[in-house]
Amino acid sequence: MTDLDDALAASAEAVEAELDRLLAREDAPEKRLVEAMRHAVLGGGKRVRPFLVMETATLFGVAEQARLRTAAALELVHCYSLVHDDLPAMDDDDVRRGRPTVHKAYDEATAILAGDALLTLAFEVLAHPATHANPSVRIELTQLLAKAAGAHGMVGGQMIDLAAAEAAKRGEQLDIGGITRLQRLKTGALIDFACLAGATLGRAQETARGALRGYTHDLGLAFQIADDLLDVEGDEAQVGKKLFKDADAGKATFVSILGPDRARDQAGRLADQAAAHLGVFGPEADNLRALARFVVERKS
Amino acid sequence: MTDLDDALAASAEAVEAELDRLLAREDAPEKRLVEAMRHAVLGGGKRVRPFLVMETATLFGVAEQARLRTAAALELVHCYSLVHDDLPAMDDDDVRRGRPTVHKAYDEATAILAGDALLTLAFEVLAHPATHANPSVRIELTQLLAKAAGAHGMVGGQMIDLAAAEAAKRGEQLDIGGITRLQRLKTGALIDFACLAGATLGRAQETARGALRGYTHDLGLAFQIADDLLDVEGDEAQVGKKLFKDADAGKATFVSILGPDRARDQAGRLADQAAAHLGVFGPEADNLRALARFVVERKS
Repeated sequence: MTDLDDALAASAEAVEAELDRLLAREDAPEKRLVEAMRHAVLGGGKRVRPFLVMETATLFGVAEQARLRTAAALELVHCYSLVHDDLPAMDDDDVRRGRPTVHKAYDEATAILAGDALLTLAFEVLAHPATHANPSVRIELTQLLAKAAGAHGMVGGQMIDLAAAEAAKRGEQLDIGGITRLQRLKTGALIDFACLAGATLGRAQETARGALRGYTHDLGLAFQIADDLLDVEGDEAQVGKKLFKDADAGKATFVSILGPDRARDQAGRLADQAAAHLGVFGPEADNLRALARFVVERKS
Repeated sequence: MTDLDDALAASAEAVEAELDRLLAREDAPEKRLVEAMRHAVLGGGKRVRPFLVMETATLFGVAEQARLRTAAALELVHCYSLVHDDLPAMDDDDVRRGRPTVHKAYDEATAILAGDALLTLAFEVLAHPATHANPSVRIELTQLLAKAAGAHGMVGGQMIDLAAAEAAKRGEQLDIGGITRLQRLKTGALIDFACLAGATLGRAQETARGALRGYTHDLGLAFQIADDLLDVEGDEAQVGKKLFKDADAGKATFVSILGPDRARDQAGRLADQAAAHLGVFGPEADNLRALARFVVERKS
Protein backbone atom coordinates (compact mmCIF):
# COMPACT_ATOMS: atom_id res chain seq x y z
CA MET A 1 0.00 0.00 0.00
CA THR A 2 1.30 3.43 -0.94
CA ASP A 3 0.49 6.62 0.92
CA LEU A 4 -2.00 7.38 -1.82
CA ASP A 5 -3.75 4.02 -1.37
CA ASP A 6 -4.08 4.73 2.35
CA ALA A 7 -5.38 8.23 1.75
CA LEU A 8 -7.86 7.05 -0.91
CA ALA A 9 -9.16 4.31 1.38
CA ALA A 10 -9.52 6.62 4.37
CA SER A 11 -11.32 9.25 2.29
CA ALA A 12 -13.63 6.69 0.66
CA GLU A 13 -14.56 5.32 4.09
CA ALA A 14 -15.34 8.75 5.51
CA VAL A 15 -17.37 9.72 2.44
CA GLU A 16 -19.26 6.42 2.58
CA ALA A 17 -20.22 7.11 6.20
CA GLU A 18 -21.37 10.62 5.30
CA LEU A 19 -23.48 9.33 2.39
CA ASP A 20 -24.98 6.71 4.69
CA ARG A 21 -25.98 9.49 7.13
CA LEU A 22 -27.46 11.63 4.36
CA LEU A 23 -29.52 8.70 3.08
CA ALA A 24 -30.93 7.65 6.43
CA ARG A 25 -33.58 4.95 6.28
CA GLU A 26 -36.97 5.74 7.69
CA ASP A 27 -40.29 4.05 7.86
CA ALA A 28 -42.20 6.31 5.45
CA PRO A 29 -44.36 5.26 2.48
CA GLU A 30 -41.60 6.53 0.19
CA LYS A 31 -39.01 4.20 1.78
CA ARG A 32 -38.60 2.21 -1.44
CA LEU A 33 -37.23 5.38 -3.00
CA VAL A 34 -34.68 5.83 -0.24
CA GLU A 35 -33.65 2.17 -0.58
CA ALA A 36 -33.11 2.62 -4.32
CA MET A 37 -31.06 5.77 -3.65
CA ARG A 38 -28.93 3.84 -1.17
CA HIS A 39 -28.46 1.04 -3.69
CA ALA A 40 -27.25 3.60 -6.24
CA VAL A 41 -24.82 5.33 -3.92
CA LEU A 42 -23.50 3.11 -1.15
CA GLY A 43 -20.85 0.43 -1.24
CA GLY A 44 -19.15 1.57 -4.32
CA GLY A 45 -16.14 2.77 -6.10
CA LYS A 46 -12.88 4.47 -5.36
CA ARG A 47 -14.67 7.78 -4.86
CA VAL A 48 -12.06 9.67 -6.86
CA ARG A 49 -14.20 12.79 -7.23
CA PRO A 50 -14.91 13.11 -3.49
CA PHE A 51 -11.21 12.48 -2.84
CA LEU A 52 -10.36 15.48 -5.02
CA VAL A 53 -12.68 17.64 -2.93
CA MET A 54 -11.20 16.31 0.30
CA GLU A 55 -7.61 16.82 -0.82
CA THR A 56 -7.96 20.25 -2.41
CA ALA A 57 -9.95 21.50 0.58
CA THR A 58 -7.17 20.25 2.85
CA LEU A 59 -4.72 22.54 1.04
CA PHE A 60 -6.66 25.47 2.49
CA GLY A 61 -7.28 24.07 5.96
CA VAL A 62 -11.02 23.51 5.47
CA ALA A 63 -12.88 21.83 8.34
CA GLU A 64 -13.73 18.13 8.08
CA GLN A 65 -17.52 18.50 8.02
CA ALA A 66 -17.44 21.04 5.20
CA ARG A 67 -15.12 18.85 3.13
CA LEU A 68 -17.19 15.73 3.71
CA ARG A 69 -20.57 17.24 2.92
CA THR A 70 -19.30 18.88 -0.25
CA ALA A 71 -17.59 15.68 -1.33
CA ALA A 72 -20.80 13.74 -0.64
CA ALA A 73 -22.91 16.22 -2.62
CA LEU A 74 -20.64 15.78 -5.62
CA GLU A 75 -20.80 11.99 -5.33
CA LEU A 76 -24.61 12.16 -5.22
CA VAL A 77 -24.56 13.95 -8.57
CA HIS A 78 -22.11 11.46 -10.03
CA CYS A 79 -24.24 8.53 -8.84
CA TYR A 80 -27.49 10.02 -10.12
CA SER A 81 -25.90 10.40 -13.56
CA LEU A 82 -24.90 6.72 -13.51
CA VAL A 83 -28.44 5.62 -12.57
CA HIS A 84 -29.97 7.54 -15.47
CA ASP A 85 -27.14 6.59 -17.85
CA ASP A 86 -27.75 2.89 -17.14
CA LEU A 87 -31.47 3.07 -18.05
CA PRO A 88 -32.70 0.99 -21.01
CA ALA A 89 -33.37 4.15 -23.03
CA MET A 90 -29.78 5.27 -22.48
CA ASP A 91 -26.86 2.81 -22.18
CA ASP A 92 -29.06 -0.11 -21.11
CA ASP A 93 -26.63 -1.57 -18.59
CA ASP A 94 -27.52 -4.39 -16.20
CA VAL A 95 -24.40 -4.31 -14.04
CA ARG A 96 -22.59 -1.48 -12.29
CA ARG A 97 -19.81 -1.89 -9.73
CA GLY A 98 -20.41 -5.63 -9.96
CA ARG A 99 -24.03 -5.32 -8.80
CA PRO A 100 -27.36 -5.00 -10.63
CA THR A 101 -28.09 -1.48 -11.80
CA VAL A 102 -30.94 0.35 -10.02
CA HIS A 103 -33.56 -0.33 -12.70
CA LYS A 104 -32.63 -4.04 -12.54
CA ALA A 105 -32.67 -4.26 -8.75
CA TYR A 106 -35.88 -2.18 -8.57
CA ASP A 107 -37.63 -1.04 -11.75
CA GLU A 108 -37.29 1.70 -14.34
CA ALA A 109 -39.72 4.15 -12.78
CA THR A 110 -38.01 3.84 -9.40
CA ALA A 111 -34.61 4.33 -11.06
CA ILE A 112 -35.77 7.51 -12.77
CA LEU A 113 -37.15 8.89 -9.51
CA ALA A 114 -34.13 7.77 -7.46
CA GLY A 115 -31.84 9.62 -9.87
CA ASP A 116 -34.00 12.72 -9.65
CA ALA A 117 -34.01 12.59 -5.86
CA LEU A 118 -30.22 12.11 -5.65
CA LEU A 119 -29.62 15.17 -7.82
CA THR A 120 -32.03 17.19 -5.71
CA LEU A 121 -30.44 15.97 -2.49
CA ALA A 122 -27.02 17.15 -3.68
CA PHE A 123 -28.29 20.73 -3.74
CA GLU A 124 -30.07 20.32 -0.43
CA VAL A 125 -26.80 19.17 1.15
CA LEU A 126 -24.78 22.07 -0.26
CA ALA A 127 -27.38 24.65 0.71
CA HIS A 128 -27.67 23.43 4.31
CA PRO A 129 -25.89 25.57 6.95
CA ALA A 130 -24.04 22.46 8.19
CA THR A 131 -21.93 22.58 5.01
CA HIS A 132 -20.42 25.99 5.75
CA ALA A 133 -21.28 28.82 8.14
CA ASN A 134 -20.94 31.42 5.38
CA PRO A 135 -23.97 31.55 3.03
CA SER A 136 -21.82 33.12 0.29
CA VAL A 137 -19.64 30.02 0.23
CA ARG A 138 -22.64 27.71 0.09
CA ILE A 139 -24.31 29.64 -2.71
CA GLU A 140 -21.07 29.74 -4.71
CA LEU A 141 -20.76 25.96 -4.37
CA THR A 142 -24.38 25.56 -5.45
CA GLN A 143 -23.84 27.71 -8.51
CA LEU A 144 -20.64 25.89 -9.47
CA LEU A 145 -22.25 22.47 -9.11
CA ALA A 146 -25.36 23.45 -11.05
CA LYS A 147 -23.25 24.75 -13.91
CA ALA A 148 -20.97 21.72 -13.90
CA ALA A 149 -23.89 19.26 -13.89
CA GLY A 150 -26.27 21.04 -16.26
CA ALA A 151 -27.09 21.46 -19.94
CA HIS A 152 -23.73 23.04 -20.73
CA GLY A 153 -21.85 20.70 -18.40
CA MET A 154 -22.29 17.01 -17.64
CA VAL A 155 -25.79 16.55 -19.08
CA GLY A 156 -24.77 18.46 -22.20
CA GLY A 157 -21.88 16.03 -22.57
CA GLN A 158 -24.22 13.06 -22.24
CA MET A 159 -26.38 14.56 -24.98
CA ILE A 160 -23.40 14.99 -27.30
CA ASP A 161 -22.39 11.41 -26.50
CA LEU A 162 -25.82 10.14 -27.57
CA ALA A 163 -25.64 12.18 -30.77
CA ALA A 164 -22.16 10.80 -31.44
CA ALA A 165 -23.46 7.24 -31.03
CA GLU A 166 -26.25 7.95 -33.54
CA ALA A 167 -23.78 9.52 -35.94
CA ALA A 168 -21.48 6.51 -35.59
CA LYS A 169 -24.30 4.30 -36.87
CA ARG A 170 -24.26 6.40 -40.04
CA GLY A 171 -20.48 6.03 -40.20
CA GLU A 172 -19.79 9.59 -39.04
CA GLN A 173 -17.18 10.04 -36.34
CA LEU A 174 -16.23 12.88 -34.04
CA ASP A 175 -12.73 14.22 -34.58
CA ILE A 176 -10.28 14.66 -31.72
CA GLY A 177 -11.58 18.19 -31.06
CA GLY A 178 -15.16 16.94 -30.88
CA ILE A 179 -14.23 14.11 -28.50
CA THR A 180 -12.24 16.45 -26.31
CA ARG A 181 -15.20 18.82 -26.01
CA LEU A 182 -17.57 15.91 -25.32
CA GLN A 183 -15.35 14.63 -22.52
CA ARG A 184 -14.64 18.10 -21.10
CA LEU A 185 -18.38 18.36 -20.52
CA LYS A 186 -19.33 14.76 -19.75
CA THR A 187 -16.63 13.94 -17.22
CA GLY A 188 -14.41 17.02 -17.01
CA ALA A 189 -17.02 19.41 -15.63
CA LEU A 190 -17.57 17.45 -12.40
CA ILE A 191 -13.83 16.91 -11.94
CA ASP A 192 -13.33 20.66 -12.32
CA PHE A 193 -15.99 21.19 -9.70
CA ALA A 194 -14.22 18.80 -7.34
CA CYS A 195 -11.06 20.89 -7.33
CA LEU A 196 -12.71 24.30 -7.38
CA ALA A 197 -15.01 23.29 -4.52
CA GLY A 198 -11.99 22.83 -2.28
CA ALA A 199 -10.73 26.29 -3.27
CA THR A 200 -14.18 27.81 -2.73
CA LEU A 201 -14.57 26.25 0.71
CA GLY A 202 -11.11 27.55 1.59
CA ARG A 203 -11.71 30.98 0.07
CA ALA A 204 -8.49 30.49 -1.88
CA GLN A 205 -6.60 33.25 -3.67
CA GLU A 206 -6.70 33.47 -7.46
CA THR A 207 -3.14 32.05 -7.85
CA ALA A 208 -4.13 28.86 -6.05
CA ARG A 209 -7.40 28.63 -7.98
CA GLY A 210 -5.58 29.03 -11.27
CA ALA A 211 -3.14 26.27 -10.36
CA LEU A 212 -6.02 23.95 -9.48
CA ARG A 213 -7.84 24.81 -12.70
CA GLY A 214 -4.77 23.78 -14.67
CA TYR A 215 -4.39 20.60 -12.65
CA THR A 216 -8.00 19.58 -13.02
CA HIS A 217 -8.11 20.36 -16.73
CA ASP A 218 -5.23 17.99 -17.50
CA LEU A 219 -6.33 15.43 -14.93
CA GLY A 220 -9.84 15.25 -16.40
CA LEU A 221 -8.57 14.45 -19.90
CA ALA A 222 -6.00 11.97 -18.59
CA PHE A 223 -8.75 10.28 -16.60
CA GLN A 224 -10.94 9.96 -19.68
CA ILE A 225 -8.21 8.60 -21.94
CA ALA A 226 -7.42 6.03 -19.24
CA ASP A 227 -11.12 5.14 -19.15
CA ASP A 228 -11.14 4.61 -22.92
CA LEU A 229 -8.05 2.39 -22.58
CA LEU A 230 -9.74 0.37 -19.82
CA ASP A 231 -12.79 -0.03 -22.05
CA VAL A 232 -10.73 -1.93 -24.64
CA GLU A 233 -7.96 -3.43 -22.47
CA GLY A 234 -9.49 -3.84 -19.03
CA ASP A 235 -10.56 -6.98 -17.23
CA GLU A 236 -14.35 -7.07 -17.03
CA ALA A 237 -14.50 -8.67 -13.55
CA GLN A 238 -12.04 -6.13 -12.19
CA VAL A 239 -13.67 -3.10 -13.79
CA GLY A 240 -17.12 -4.31 -12.67
CA LYS A 241 -19.06 -3.29 -15.78
CA LYS A 242 -19.49 -4.34 -19.39
CA LEU A 243 -16.49 -3.41 -21.52
CA PHE A 244 -15.88 -2.83 -25.24
CA LYS A 245 -19.06 -0.80 -25.35
CA ASP A 246 -17.69 2.21 -27.15
CA ALA A 247 -15.60 0.10 -29.51
CA ASP A 248 -18.53 -2.18 -30.29
CA ALA A 249 -20.78 0.79 -30.92
CA GLY A 250 -18.25 2.07 -33.45
CA LYS A 251 -17.92 5.30 -31.49
CA ALA A 252 -14.80 7.37 -31.86
CA THR A 253 -12.76 7.53 -28.64
CA PHE A 254 -9.30 8.85 -27.83
CA VAL A 255 -8.06 5.28 -28.27
CA SER A 256 -9.77 4.64 -31.60
CA ILE A 257 -8.30 7.82 -33.04
CA LEU A 258 -4.83 7.83 -31.47
CA GLY A 259 -4.36 4.08 -31.13
CA PRO A 260 -3.61 2.55 -27.70
CA ASP A 261 0.11 3.38 -27.61
CA ARG A 262 -0.19 7.06 -28.44
CA ALA A 263 -3.24 7.30 -26.18
CA ARG A 264 -1.25 5.83 -23.31
CA ASP A 265 1.61 8.27 -23.97
CA GLN A 266 -0.78 11.17 -24.12
CA ALA A 267 -2.44 10.18 -20.84
CA GLY A 268 0.97 9.91 -19.18
CA ARG A 269 2.00 13.32 -20.50
CA LEU A 270 -1.23 14.90 -19.26
CA ALA A 271 -0.72 13.32 -15.84
CA ASP A 272 2.78 14.82 -15.58
CA GLN A 273 1.49 18.16 -16.76
CA ALA A 274 -1.32 18.04 -14.19
CA ALA A 275 1.14 17.42 -11.39
CA ALA A 276 3.39 20.23 -12.64
CA HIS A 277 0.60 22.78 -12.08
CA LEU A 278 0.78 22.09 -8.36
CA GLY A 279 4.18 23.76 -7.92
CA VAL A 280 2.66 26.57 -5.86
CA PHE A 281 1.73 24.06 -3.19
CA GLY A 282 4.09 22.23 -0.87
CA PRO A 283 4.17 18.58 0.17
CA GLU A 284 0.56 18.81 1.33
CA ALA A 285 -0.34 18.44 -2.39
CA ASP A 286 1.59 15.17 -2.70
CA ASN A 287 -1.59 13.08 -2.72
CA LEU A 288 -2.92 15.15 -5.62
CA ARG A 289 0.38 14.64 -7.48
CA ALA A 290 0.26 10.90 -6.85
CA LEU A 291 -3.39 10.81 -7.91
CA ALA A 292 -2.53 12.14 -11.36
CA ARG A 293 -0.24 9.12 -11.83
CA PHE A 294 -2.82 6.79 -10.32
CA VAL A 295 -5.67 7.70 -12.65
CA VAL A 296 -3.66 6.75 -15.72
CA GLU A 297 -2.28 3.54 -14.21
CA ARG A 298 -5.40 2.15 -12.54
CA LYS A 299 -6.80 -1.21 -13.60
CA SER A 300 -10.45 -0.54 -12.71
CA MET B 1 -62.20 38.93 -18.06
CA THR B 2 -61.95 39.34 -14.32
CA ASP B 3 -59.09 41.12 -12.57
CA LEU B 4 -57.68 37.67 -11.77
CA ASP B 5 -57.76 36.63 -15.43
CA ASP B 6 -55.85 39.77 -16.34
CA ALA B 7 -53.33 39.23 -13.58
CA LEU B 8 -52.85 35.56 -14.47
CA ALA B 9 -52.35 36.39 -18.14
CA ALA B 10 -49.87 39.18 -17.40
CA SER B 11 -47.89 36.98 -15.02
CA ALA B 12 -47.87 34.02 -17.43
CA GLU B 13 -46.57 36.25 -20.20
CA ALA B 14 -43.78 37.70 -18.07
CA VAL B 15 -42.78 34.24 -16.80
CA GLU B 16 -42.82 32.87 -20.35
CA ALA B 17 -40.45 35.62 -21.47
CA GLU B 18 -38.15 34.90 -18.53
CA LEU B 19 -38.11 31.15 -19.29
CA ASP B 20 -37.36 31.94 -22.93
CA ARG B 21 -34.38 34.02 -21.83
CA LEU B 22 -33.13 31.31 -19.47
CA LEU B 23 -33.37 28.69 -22.22
CA ALA B 24 -31.57 30.70 -24.88
CA ARG B 25 -30.82 28.80 -28.07
CA GLU B 26 -27.21 28.50 -29.11
CA ASP B 27 -25.31 26.72 -31.81
CA ALA B 28 -23.56 24.13 -29.64
CA PRO B 29 -23.40 20.35 -30.20
CA GLU B 30 -25.80 19.95 -27.28
CA LYS B 31 -28.44 22.16 -28.94
CA ARG B 32 -30.88 19.25 -29.30
CA LEU B 33 -30.97 19.14 -25.50
CA VAL B 34 -31.82 22.83 -25.25
CA GLU B 35 -34.54 22.40 -27.90
CA ALA B 36 -36.06 19.56 -25.91
CA MET B 37 -35.94 21.67 -22.74
CA ARG B 38 -37.70 24.50 -24.57
CA HIS B 39 -40.33 22.07 -25.84
CA ALA B 40 -40.95 20.94 -22.27
CA VAL B 41 -41.23 24.41 -20.80
CA LEU B 42 -42.39 27.04 -23.29
CA GLY B 43 -45.83 27.80 -24.61
CA GLY B 44 -47.74 26.16 -21.89
CA GLY B 45 -50.19 26.32 -19.10
CA LYS B 46 -51.68 28.85 -16.77
CA ARG B 47 -48.46 28.99 -14.76
CA VAL B 48 -50.34 28.87 -11.48
CA ARG B 49 -47.23 28.07 -9.41
CA PRO B 50 -45.20 30.98 -10.80
CA PHE B 51 -48.23 33.21 -10.29
CA LEU B 52 -48.23 32.30 -6.59
CA VAL B 53 -44.58 33.34 -6.34
CA MET B 54 -45.26 36.58 -8.19
CA GLU B 55 -48.29 37.47 -6.05
CA THR B 56 -46.90 36.55 -2.63
CA ALA B 57 -43.64 38.35 -3.41
CA THR B 58 -45.67 41.42 -4.35
CA LEU B 59 -47.14 41.48 -0.84
CA PHE B 60 -43.66 42.28 0.43
CA GLY B 61 -42.61 44.71 -2.30
CA VAL B 62 -40.07 42.37 -3.91
CA ALA B 63 -38.39 43.61 -7.10
CA GLU B 64 -39.60 42.32 -10.47
CA GLN B 65 -36.42 40.49 -11.46
CA ALA B 66 -36.24 38.56 -8.18
CA ARG B 67 -39.89 37.53 -8.46
CA LEU B 68 -39.55 36.48 -12.08
CA ARG B 69 -36.39 34.43 -11.68
CA THR B 70 -37.74 32.62 -8.63
CA ALA B 71 -41.05 31.97 -10.37
CA ALA B 72 -39.19 30.65 -13.41
CA ALA B 73 -36.99 28.36 -11.30
CA LEU B 74 -40.08 26.83 -9.73
CA GLU B 75 -41.69 26.33 -13.14
CA LEU B 76 -38.53 24.60 -14.39
CA VAL B 77 -38.89 22.07 -11.58
CA HIS B 78 -42.58 21.58 -12.29
CA CYS B 79 -41.88 21.05 -16.00
CA TYR B 80 -39.01 18.61 -15.41
CA SER B 81 -41.32 16.53 -13.21
CA LEU B 82 -43.88 16.41 -16.02
CA VAL B 83 -41.26 15.30 -18.57
CA HIS B 84 -40.14 12.41 -16.37
CA ASP B 85 -43.70 11.59 -15.28
CA ASP B 86 -44.76 11.25 -18.93
CA LEU B 87 -42.03 8.69 -19.75
CA PRO B 88 -43.11 5.18 -20.84
CA ALA B 89 -41.73 3.68 -17.61
CA MET B 90 -43.86 6.12 -15.59
CA ASP B 91 -47.28 7.37 -16.78
CA ASP B 92 -46.57 6.69 -20.47
CA ASP B 93 -48.34 9.77 -21.80
CA ASP B 94 -48.16 10.88 -25.43
CA VAL B 95 -49.82 14.26 -25.07
CA ARG B 96 -49.27 17.15 -22.68
CA ARG B 97 -50.81 20.61 -23.01
CA GLY B 98 -52.22 19.46 -26.32
CA ARG B 99 -48.76 18.75 -27.80
CA PRO B 100 -46.60 15.61 -28.01
CA THR B 101 -44.71 14.87 -24.81
CA VAL B 102 -40.93 15.33 -24.93
CA HIS B 103 -40.11 11.65 -25.44
CA LYS B 104 -42.61 11.58 -28.33
CA ALA B 105 -41.34 14.77 -29.96
CA TYR B 106 -37.70 13.71 -29.40
CA ASP B 107 -36.86 10.34 -27.83
CA GLU B 108 -36.73 8.77 -24.40
CA ALA B 109 -33.03 9.36 -23.75
CA THR B 110 -33.36 13.03 -24.69
CA ALA B 111 -36.42 13.35 -22.44
CA ILE B 112 -34.56 11.89 -19.47
CA LEU B 113 -31.64 14.25 -20.01
CA ALA B 114 -33.87 17.27 -20.67
CA GLY B 115 -35.65 16.66 -17.36
CA ASP B 116 -32.33 16.33 -15.56
CA ALA B 117 -31.05 19.54 -17.12
CA LEU B 118 -34.23 21.48 -16.26
CA LEU B 119 -33.99 20.46 -12.60
CA THR B 120 -30.33 21.46 -12.53
CA LEU B 121 -31.06 24.77 -14.23
CA ALA B 122 -33.63 25.63 -11.56
CA PHE B 123 -30.90 25.58 -8.92
CA GLU B 124 -28.50 27.47 -11.16
CA VAL B 125 -31.11 30.20 -11.57
CA LEU B 126 -31.82 30.50 -7.84
CA ALA B 127 -28.13 30.52 -6.93
CA HIS B 128 -27.22 33.24 -9.42
CA PRO B 129 -26.68 36.74 -7.97
CA ALA B 130 -29.23 38.17 -10.43
CA THR B 131 -31.97 36.50 -8.39
CA HIS B 132 -31.27 38.46 -5.21
CA ALA B 133 -28.36 40.56 -4.00
CA ASN B 134 -28.34 38.83 -0.62
CA PRO B 135 -26.69 35.36 -0.68
CA SER B 136 -28.60 34.35 2.45
CA VAL B 137 -31.88 34.82 0.60
CA ARG B 138 -30.65 32.84 -2.40
CA ILE B 139 -29.38 29.97 -0.28
CA GLU B 140 -32.62 29.86 1.70
CA LEU B 141 -34.59 29.63 -1.55
CA THR B 142 -32.28 26.87 -2.77
CA GLN B 143 -32.75 24.88 0.42
CA LEU B 144 -36.53 25.32 0.36
CA LEU B 145 -36.78 24.24 -3.27
CA ALA B 146 -34.51 21.22 -2.81
CA LYS B 147 -36.58 20.04 0.15
CA ALA B 148 -39.86 20.62 -1.65
CA ALA B 149 -38.72 18.79 -4.79
CA GLY B 150 -36.81 15.90 -3.21
CA ALA B 151 -37.25 12.44 -1.75
CA HIS B 152 -39.44 13.69 1.08
CA GLY B 153 -41.25 16.19 -1.13
CA MET B 154 -42.43 15.97 -4.73
CA VAL B 155 -40.36 12.95 -5.83
CA GLY B 156 -41.36 11.10 -2.64
CA GLY B 157 -44.98 11.77 -3.55
CA GLN B 158 -44.44 10.39 -7.06
CA MET B 159 -42.94 7.26 -5.50
CA ILE B 160 -45.94 6.79 -3.20
CA ASP B 161 -48.19 7.34 -6.21
CA LEU B 162 -46.45 4.52 -8.10
CA ALA B 163 -46.72 2.24 -5.09
CA ALA B 164 -50.41 3.11 -4.77
CA ALA B 165 -50.96 2.19 -8.43
CA GLU B 166 -49.27 -1.17 -7.87
CA ALA B 167 -51.32 -1.76 -4.73
CA ALA B 168 -54.50 -0.89 -6.64
CA LYS B 169 -53.77 -3.75 -9.04
CA ARG B 170 -53.90 -6.07 -6.04
CA GLY B 171 -57.17 -4.44 -4.96
CA GLU B 172 -55.57 -2.46 -2.12
CA GLN B 173 -56.49 1.20 -1.82
CA LEU B 174 -55.06 4.13 0.08
CA ASP B 175 -57.39 5.60 2.67
CA ILE B 176 -58.13 9.31 2.83
CA GLY B 177 -55.15 9.88 5.14
CA GLY B 178 -52.84 8.10 2.72
CA ILE B 179 -54.12 10.07 -0.25
CA THR B 180 -53.80 13.32 1.62
CA ARG B 181 -50.16 12.57 2.49
CA LEU B 182 -49.44 11.50 -1.10
CA GLN B 183 -50.86 14.74 -2.46
CA ARG B 184 -49.25 16.92 0.22
CA LEU B 185 -45.92 15.64 -1.10
CA LYS B 186 -46.64 15.20 -4.80
CA THR B 187 -48.30 18.53 -5.51
CA GLY B 188 -48.49 20.35 -2.17
CA ALA B 189 -44.76 20.68 -1.57
CA LEU B 190 -44.12 22.82 -4.67
CA ILE B 191 -47.20 24.93 -3.97
CA ASP B 192 -45.92 25.52 -0.44
CA PHE B 193 -42.61 26.57 -1.91
CA ALA B 194 -44.35 29.02 -4.23
CA CYS B 195 -45.87 30.94 -1.33
CA LEU B 196 -42.91 30.69 1.02
CA ALA B 197 -40.54 31.82 -1.73
CA GLY B 198 -42.39 35.14 -1.89
CA ALA B 199 -42.06 35.51 1.88
CA THR B 200 -38.37 34.57 1.76
CA LEU B 201 -37.60 37.04 -1.01
CA GLY B 202 -39.42 39.70 0.99
CA ARG B 203 -37.81 38.72 4.29
CA ALA B 204 -41.31 38.54 5.75
CA GLN B 205 -42.14 38.42 9.44
CA GLU B 206 -43.29 35.17 11.03
CA THR B 207 -46.96 36.33 11.20
CA ALA B 208 -47.06 36.82 7.46
CA ARG B 209 -45.26 33.54 6.84
CA GLY B 210 -47.69 31.67 9.09
CA ALA B 211 -50.65 33.16 7.22
CA LEU B 212 -49.16 32.11 3.90
CA ARG B 213 -48.44 28.61 5.19
CA GLY B 214 -52.09 28.25 6.15
CA TYR B 215 -53.22 29.60 2.79
CA THR B 216 -50.96 27.34 0.79
CA HIS B 217 -51.81 24.24 2.82
CA ASP B 218 -55.52 24.57 2.10
CA LEU B 219 -54.97 25.78 -1.45
CA GLY B 220 -52.79 22.78 -2.28
CA LEU B 221 -55.42 20.27 -1.22
CA ALA B 222 -58.22 22.20 -2.91
CA PHE B 223 -56.13 22.25 -6.09
CA GLN B 224 -55.63 18.50 -5.97
CA ILE B 225 -59.27 17.65 -5.32
CA ALA B 226 -60.19 19.90 -8.25
CA ASP B 227 -57.64 18.01 -10.36
CA ASP B 228 -59.21 14.70 -9.39
CA LEU B 229 -62.63 16.08 -10.33
CA LEU B 230 -61.29 17.27 -13.69
CA ASP B 231 -59.85 13.79 -14.28
CA VAL B 232 -63.32 12.25 -14.19
CA GLU B 233 -65.49 15.17 -15.31
CA GLY B 234 -63.25 17.31 -17.51
CA ASP B 235 -63.27 17.77 -21.26
CA GLU B 236 -60.18 16.11 -22.75
CA ALA B 237 -59.62 18.71 -25.47
CA GLN B 238 -59.89 21.53 -22.92
CA VAL B 239 -57.67 19.89 -20.30
CA GLY B 240 -55.10 18.98 -22.98
CA LYS B 241 -54.14 15.55 -21.64
CA LYS B 242 -55.60 12.06 -21.34
CA LEU B 243 -58.30 11.85 -18.67
CA PHE B 244 -59.81 9.06 -16.56
CA LYS B 245 -56.33 7.78 -15.90
CA ASP B 246 -56.62 7.45 -12.16
CA ALA B 247 -60.14 6.08 -12.34
CA ASP B 248 -59.19 3.56 -15.04
CA ALA B 249 -56.18 2.46 -13.05
CA GLY B 250 -58.48 1.74 -10.09
CA LYS B 251 -56.48 4.16 -7.96
CA ALA B 252 -58.12 5.74 -4.95
CA THR B 253 -58.52 9.51 -5.30
CA PHE B 254 -60.36 12.12 -3.28
CA VAL B 255 -63.23 11.72 -5.72
CA SER B 256 -63.36 7.93 -5.62
CA ILE B 257 -63.50 7.97 -1.83
CA LEU B 258 -65.70 11.00 -1.18
CA GLY B 259 -67.79 10.89 -4.35
CA PRO B 260 -67.92 13.90 -6.70
CA ASP B 261 -70.47 15.93 -4.70
CA ARG B 262 -68.72 15.72 -1.37
CA ALA B 263 -65.36 16.21 -3.08
CA ARG B 264 -66.67 19.41 -4.72
CA ASP B 265 -68.01 20.64 -1.38
CA GLN B 266 -64.74 19.88 0.32
CA ALA B 267 -62.71 21.70 -2.35
CA GLY B 268 -64.98 24.73 -2.01
CA ARG B 269 -64.63 24.70 1.77
CA LEU B 270 -60.84 24.47 1.52
CA ALA B 271 -60.79 27.37 -0.95
CA ASP B 272 -62.79 29.55 1.47
CA GLN B 273 -60.55 28.51 4.32
CA ALA B 274 -57.45 29.31 2.27
CA ALA B 275 -58.72 32.81 1.54
CA ALA B 276 -59.62 33.33 5.22
CA HIS B 277 -55.96 32.90 6.20
CA LEU B 278 -55.11 36.04 4.27
CA GLY B 279 -56.88 38.36 6.74
CA VAL B 280 -53.55 39.89 7.83
CA PHE B 281 -53.08 41.28 4.33
CA GLY B 282 -55.02 44.10 2.72
CA PRO B 283 -56.50 44.39 -0.75
CA GLU B 284 -53.08 43.64 -2.28
CA ALA B 285 -53.86 39.97 -1.51
CA ASP B 286 -57.12 40.05 -3.51
CA ASN B 287 -55.58 38.13 -6.41
CA LEU B 288 -54.54 35.35 -4.03
CA ARG B 289 -58.09 35.28 -2.58
CA ALA B 290 -59.58 35.10 -6.07
CA LEU B 291 -57.09 32.40 -7.03
CA ALA B 292 -58.33 30.09 -4.29
CA ARG B 293 -61.79 30.29 -5.88
CA PHE B 294 -60.34 29.91 -9.35
CA VAL B 295 -58.45 26.67 -8.71
CA VAL B 296 -61.61 24.86 -7.66
CA GLU B 297 -63.73 26.27 -10.47
CA ARG B 298 -61.32 25.93 -13.41
CA LYS B 299 -62.22 23.73 -16.37
CA SER B 300 -58.66 22.83 -17.41
